Order: sequence, then C-alpha cells, then structure tokens
Amino acid sequence: MKPIAGVMGPGEGATEELCELAFELGRQIALQGWVLLTGGRNVGVMDAAIRGAASQNGLTIALLPGADRNEASPHLGIAIPTGMGNARNVINSLASDVVIACGMGAGTASEVAIAIKLQKPVILLEVSSKGCEFFKELGGDRVYVAESVQEAIARMRELFKRITVSGLPQVHPL
Amino acid sequence: MKPIAGVMGPGEGATEELCELAFELGRQIALQGWVLLTGGRNVGVMDAAIRGAASQNGLTIALLPGADRNEASPHLGIAIPTGMGNARNVINSLASDVVIACGMGAGTASEVAIAIKLQKPVILLEVSSKGCEFFKELGGDRVYVAESVQEAIARMRELFKRITVSGLPQVHPL
Amino acid sequence: MKPIAGVMGPGEGATEELCELAFELGRQIALQGWVLLTGGRNVGVMDAAIRGAASQNGLTIALLPGADRNEASPHLGIAIPTGMGNARNVINSLASDVVIACGMGAGTASEVAIAIKLQKPVILLEVSSKGCEFFKELGGDRVYVAESVQEAIARMRELFKRITVSGLPQVHPL
Amino acid sequence: MKPIAGVMGPGEGATEELCELAFELGRQIALQGWVLLTGGRNVGVMDAAIRGAASQNGLTIALLPGADRNEASPHLGIAIPTGMGNARNVINSLASDVVIACGMGAGTASEVAIAIKLQKPVILLEVSSKGCEFFKELGGDRVYVAESVQEAIARMRELFKRITVSGLPQVHPL
Repeated sequence: MKPIAGVMGPGEGATEELCELAFELGRQIALQGWVLLTGGRNVGVMDAAIRGAASQNGLTIALLPGADRNEASPHLGIAIPTGMGNARNVINSLASDVVIACGMGAGTASEVAIAIKLQKPVILLEVSSKGCEFFKELGGDRVYVAESVQEAIARMRELFKRITVSGLPQVHPL
Repeated sequence: MKPIAGVMGPGEGATEELCELAFELGRQIALQGWVLLTGGRNVGVMDAAIRGAASQNGLTIALLPGADRNEASPHLGIAIPTGMGNARNVINSLASDVVIACGMGAGTASEVAIAIKLQKPVILLEVSSKGCEFFKELGGDRVYVAESVQEAIARMRELFKRITVSGLPQVHPL
Repeated sequence: MKPIAGVMGPGEGATEELCELAFELGRQIALQGWVLLTGGRNVGVMDAAIRGAASQNGLTIALLPGADRNEASPHLGIAIPTGMGNARNVINSLASDVVIACGMGAGTASEVAIAIKLQKPVILLEVSSKGCEFFKELGGDRVYVAESVQEAIARMRELFKRITVSGLPQVHPL
Repeated sequence: MKPIAGVMGPGEGATEELCELAFELGRQIALQGWVLLTGGRNVGVMDAAIRGAASQNGLTIALLPGADRNEASPHLGIAIPTGMGNARNVINSLASDVVIACGMGAGTASEVAIAIKLQKPVILLEVSSKGCEFFKELGGDRVYVAESVQEAIARMRELFKRITVSGLPQVHPL
C-alpha cells in the first residue's frame, strides 16, 4: 500500500535552483517508498522530481496533457496521455493523496486550488509570501508552508500516517 | 457577433450581498448584448448572475459539472451537462473571452488560475486583498481589480473593443 | 423551452451527398425551433448541418475539440472550445436530447455508443447495414433507423413530445 | 520498458464465463510482463482481469470514472480517480498501446471506437459477429478478431514487437 505524493510546479519557467529542490524532493519521496505523481513533461519541476525519484528506483506516474508520450520526461515510469490539456490538472489533484507545490505558476495554482476544493492536504514549498497568504486564506489548516524538503517530507509522513489510521481510501497495493 | 463574459464565484458559500452584486453584473452584461457564461448551478453567484441576465432576456449558457440538468438554475438559457465535475472549470475559462471573479472560493481560484495560464484577461470583483495581490503577481497586467460592477463593465467594454479590432477569434454570430 | 438535437457525422471524410443531407437536416431542425448541437468544426457533416440551421436563423452550438475557435465553422452560433480532443465527444452526447448519426465514422461511433450508454435516443441516418445492426443489438428500442431527413425529423418530434410530457430535464428557456 | 495492454469489457452485465476469460487474459498479460490497464471498478471484466494480473504480481493501473477510489477493485495496483465519468473512456484508449475488448457493451464500444479513431490496434474477444463486422468495417486491418486468450496474447506479442522495432512512443521504464 503506497500513498501518492503529487509534486506540481513550473515547467519552462523553473529556475535551476528550483529544479535542484524538486530533484531532492522526488528523491526523498522515492526513499520513503511513496509513489510520485507529477505533470510528467520533460521540463522544469516535473522532470527534475521524476529524475530524483528515478535515481532511487521510485515508482513515478504522470498524466500528460497531450495525446501521446512524446513530451514525457524520459525517466518517467508510467506515462498516461490524456489529450485533455489543462483539464488533466484536475486529475493530478484528484489522484494525489497530498499536493506539494514546488514553486508557483498559473498551472500549479490551478492544481492547488482544486486540491483545496477537494479538501486535500496541500504543502507549499518555495512559494511567495503572497501565494502562501492567499492559499492559507482559501484552504485554512489544510494548507501547510514548508521551509525545506525535509520539512515537507516530515509533514507528508505525518499526513500519510493519519490517512492510514483513519482508513481513508489511499490503498495502492503494489 | 457576441463576446462571452464568464462570471465565476462561490456557490453555496455566497453571501446575500455578493448575490446582489452578481445579479447586477449579469443584468449589465445582458444589457450590453454580451453572452453570459457561468457555472450554471442553482446556487450563489452563478444563479444570481443568470437571474440578472435573464431579467433582460440576455443569452446565458453554462457547462454543468453533473451529467444532467437537474442542478441547473431554472433561469438558465442553454445548459450543457459535462459529467466532468471540476474539470469543467477549465472549459469555463477556455470558453470565456474574459473571466470575472465575483467573490472568491477554491473553484473560482482554479478558474482564474487557468484563465491566467491561457493568457486571458481577468477581472476581480469583491476579491480579498490577498487574492488580488496573489493573482496580480501571477498574471501581471492581464489581471484587473474592479471596485464596482460599473468599473467591471467599463473594463470589459474596452477589452472586447480591443479583441474585435485585433481580430482575435471571439466570433459568435447570433 | 427548446430541445437540443445533436447531429454527429464524419468531418474530412464526408461525401458531398452526405453534406447535402446534413444541410437539409440542420435546416429542418432550425425550422422546428430546436437547438442544433454538432462537433462544430469547419468540415463535413458538422459544417453542413450548421450552415443549414443558420440559413433559417436557428440557434447552433458546438463543443470544439481544440482550445480556441479557429477551427469553428464560420456559421456557428455559440462556439465552446474545450481543449479536450475526443473527450468532448462525451459532452456532445450528454448535452443532446437525441443523437442523430448522419453517416458514420470512428468519432461518430463513439458518440452513438456513449448516447446508448446514457440511455438516450439515437437516430441513424445514412449508416451502413452493419452499423445499424450493431447499434440496434447494443441499444435495442432506443436506436431508430431513419430512411430520410423527413423520417428523422418526424421521429424527433415524437421523442421531444414524449420528453416534454414526462417532464424529463430538457428545459432550455430561450 | 513495458507496453500497456488495455482490457475493456462489460461491468455489471458480464457473465461468469466472460469473467473467467477476463481473469485468464489478465493473468497472461502479467505473465508476459506487460502493464494491464482497465476501467478499474470492482465488477465484471475489469475486476476479473485485475484479479488475474494480480495473481501473477503484474502491474495494474486504472482510471476510475469517479472522484475517489471507493469503487476500485481491491486488487488494483494504481488507482487514478478522474471524476470525469465516461470521458475517462477516452483516456483509457489513449493510454493503451492496444485495446482488447473482452465482451461488448456500450462503454466498451466507445473505447473501441476511440481506439480506431486514434489508429490504435484493437483486438476483439468474445464479441458478437455483428460487433466484429461493424468494427472491421470501421477500422480495417487494425481490428483483429481473436478466438481465444492465447490468440489475443500472440497477437499482442507481435504488435508490441513491431512497436518496439519502429520506435513508437511506448516507453514505460519500470
């Protein structure tokens, strides 16, 4: 039984520093034995997080916006083309047990907003103070601001424990 | 040729004051001869804006989250069930020539974020200062804060003029 | 209160004869005062049916597969870009009170199949005997084979009467 | 690198015999080392194929129509809720390297039709002669009728070999 951690973040607009953080986040998620879900394309935070998880042979999965796998990160485990463009963002949030924003952009904001609508836990990492304040106003206690990858991982560990205990539907027998 | 004004806002959580504002917004949109697009359900901002437009015999259209028309506002002109839940939020933004947030909630935030991603103009009305600051940080000049329905309408008139002049694809010959 | 007639059929692959039939079908639907819903693109059956309805100032509406209105028939009344590719076929069937296949292709077959799944009435016009036999096996009495546009229109008139009488949710106050 | 075999078929309407066939199909797919993709719910062909693959520790994945994992087969490996109802059928076809219909129903017919539209190979198993004739008329050489699970597996082996040789995007490094 493996929880799914959804890491969202900028694609083309991601800085090198943010990608390094995303790599480490993906790596740590794989080390914990969790499944990594991302946007799946071959750029920015998605690609970096996938590379991080793949470096530890973690299971990675993605719903691609396009209708084929051409744009997928070459390190991605399971690529699911949706042909639905931005509407796949909604599935990203639905399929994740927790949504972690690693940096912020318009697509990422839509995924965080949908996660809040679905009453899912959200972790914000490297998000501007304006972003943190708005999403905390919107989502209250379910929105958590992490100062480091370590803190994000610790928070997820706690969240997944609670989910397992309360028997919420996060069963992924692999 | 009629532009589509997409009015988004809270459903169950909308206050009476916000609904009065939404009614007036819908009414003014119809008076301008524009098409009103909303979330279409029989509650909150959606319902109020539709009632406002219908009071002037304006054309109203909505993509419903459910698979039938049972939840539609009884005043709605054209009801399109999608059966796609929150994924229809993305179509709401795609189908609108401008997205007006009348109040804020998680669903509305997702629609504003997608509109920004699509580089569409956004107007914020009765949105908290935290919301305005975040979305302006995200969308820059395309995000406009309106202090009143009149100001929102004036802004739309300007936007639609520009769209018509530049020949962007907003053609709805009715 | 206007029912929605969904006319589906081949795009690029449509013959001239089929397009003439689709034009007449769209024209007759508009003359009855019904709303025409199609795939909306500027080719084949979709375009011809829209032109037919537009020739009588009928209201036409379409959910486009792409993310903008560039591919829309220039005669289309209300164009709703979905950016969802073939997934918009499902909305086509959901949003129609009856699905009429005018000719057949793979996309059309998916729309007929979904309509049958949704227990909606289906009318087959200019569909091969193999197609008619399969869909009747699949959908039983809800699938009707029409030999002419007149017969299809007569069938729809009967269907819409029944829907109105039984109070099913087909209300489109325009 | 693992190809994805998409097994579609009736849910509630499946007979016991059909479920036994689906179980064996899923088992053989897992034995070949391929990923099994199905509709994922806890009934009929979907559930039986998943149980078959799980009996050999095969990787199974599904896009669920609902917004949570409550309806998922308890043996399913990776459950992706979509909240999109029948629109997830389109993703089923997009995400599969080959679509195998094991029995037929309206939902299955929509998935086969979309696969044909996408020019994907289709295998029909336990499909009526009317269904086989129609889909062969629609899809030509890409539609293959198999008389047994063994024949379906042999056909897939051939198809996946061709895909690998021609370098088509079927990369799932697991």
